[in-house]
Amino acid sequence: MKPDVICGVPAVAALFARRPGDVLRLFHVAELRPAVGAWCAVLAAARKPYRLVSADELAKVAGTPHHGGVAAVARPRPLLVFDPARPPDTRLLLVLDGIGNPHNLGAIARSAAFFGVSALLIGGGGALPSDAAYRTAEGGLDCLDLFHTPALPAALANLQRRFLVVAATLNPNAAAPQDLPGGQPIALVLGNEEHGVSPPVLTACRRQVRIAGSGRVQSLNVAQAAAVLLHTLAPRGAT
Amino acid sequence: MKPDVICGVPAVAALFARRPGDVLRLFHVAELRPAVGAWCAVLAAARKPYRLVSADELAKVAGTPHHGGVAAVARPRPLLVFDPARPPDTRLLLVLDGIGNPHNLGAIARSAAFFGVSALLIGGGGALPSDAAYRTAEGGLDCLDLFHTPALPAALANLQRRFLVVAATLNPNAAAPQDLPGGQPIALVLGNEEHGVSPPVLTACRRQVRIAGSGRVQSLNVAQAAAVLLHTLAPRGAT
Repeated sequence: MKPDVICGVPAVAALFARRPGDVLRLFHVAELRPAVGAWCAVLAAARKPYRLVSADELAKVAGTPHHGGVAAVARPRPLLVFDPARPPDTRLLLVLDGIGNPHNLGAIARSAAFFGVSALLIGGGGALPSDAAYRTAEGGLDCLDLFHTPALPAALANLQRRFLVVAATLNPNAAAPQDLPGGQPIALVLGNEEHGVSPPVLTACRRQVRIAGSGRVQSLNVAQAAAVLLHTLAPRGAT
Repeated sequence: MKPDVICGVPAVAALFARRPGDVLRLFHVAELRPAVGAWCAVLAAARKPYRLVSADELAKVAGTPHHGGVAAVARPRPLLVFDPARPPDTRLLLVLDGIGNPHNLGAIARSAAFFGVSALLIGGGGALPSDAAYRTAEGGLDCLDLFHTPALPAALANLQRRFLVVAATLNPNAAAPQDLPGGQPIALVLGNEEHGVSPPVLTACRRQVRIAGSGRVQSLNVAQAAAVLLHTLAPRGAT
């Protein structure tokens, strides 16, 4: 498997905090020497390389000029295969059904970590964590337990025993987020940027939730909708 | 001035709804013929050209492969010079202090329009509406009155008479959005992606507001923070 290339101080800090043993090597520009000192010491102790490079060289390693001055090459983090019989013990499970844009995946992970969500379930067909997603997440992906399932409708049907499974939709009859019943843990399902939650997944959801708008534009971007819903639901739900 | 190139069905629909006379010409792919029929009729009546093109040709016109099948070339929309003595008559004025990324500008405009905000004030040094911002906004920019000022601190000082001027910050002593006093219209100031609200602008703000987080990542992306704050403040504030 191709290694992860994780860029930017926040994302690299999360990487060293959560899985330092996975880091294979580190590259940084001169300006970031104070920020990377402790990480270089970790690598030196493990006899792993780190190197001062120019911004242009770093852009080649990182595959982007938006590297934030530091890039870590790391063993890829395996996604956990989701076992519906043993769901994560959390009050708010975030579920992605076909989010296609890796920047949206990263932005959603950043917001999820910000609001204290601890587990993310990614269904089949959507973007998986990639260099672009890690960069946008600014450490958020490394704060989450990441699960994957190719069979999301079946997984959600199984989750009903423990979670109130709720799809975010544009349906005018859907509940406002603050009107969802409390008490039970929530599995919040976000759908594809263009098409929303797919019909078989929607069928497996017990409730629908909608953010009310002015009608001047049709919808929020999914990453913005995620932030609004997590802000409303996470304070009573996150672990 | 270079014309605007506005791409995607939602953004082009907002363009034809708000300023049809500014459209100079239209390009679209065959699949979108049903969607663009009414717009072509408008252009035909005004003796302006429209043309069916391949997706590749459209990418050249649009300057991006992410054109959504339709691109309108339009007279650029002039930004209104902000006159602090005659501020927009609105309950919630959104103010941007140095937002640098055009995708963030577009995403914020989309959220602002979604939540019913009607006016956006852009300070000096930040991104101005561009093709990338229009595309990301999906029509949101054309739903807003757009103002510009090179002297944001002075403009905000003048706005104090009518607005409660509030900066979004990471300051732990800042108010939660729901704890801001109601009654007075709010001018909500969002700062640069890296550095936040600049010191002179912060000095010109009466209050600070902060979205509480878990501490696992430092902050939300500014476009996500905008959505959360607008969701909290706009229902009582938007015109």
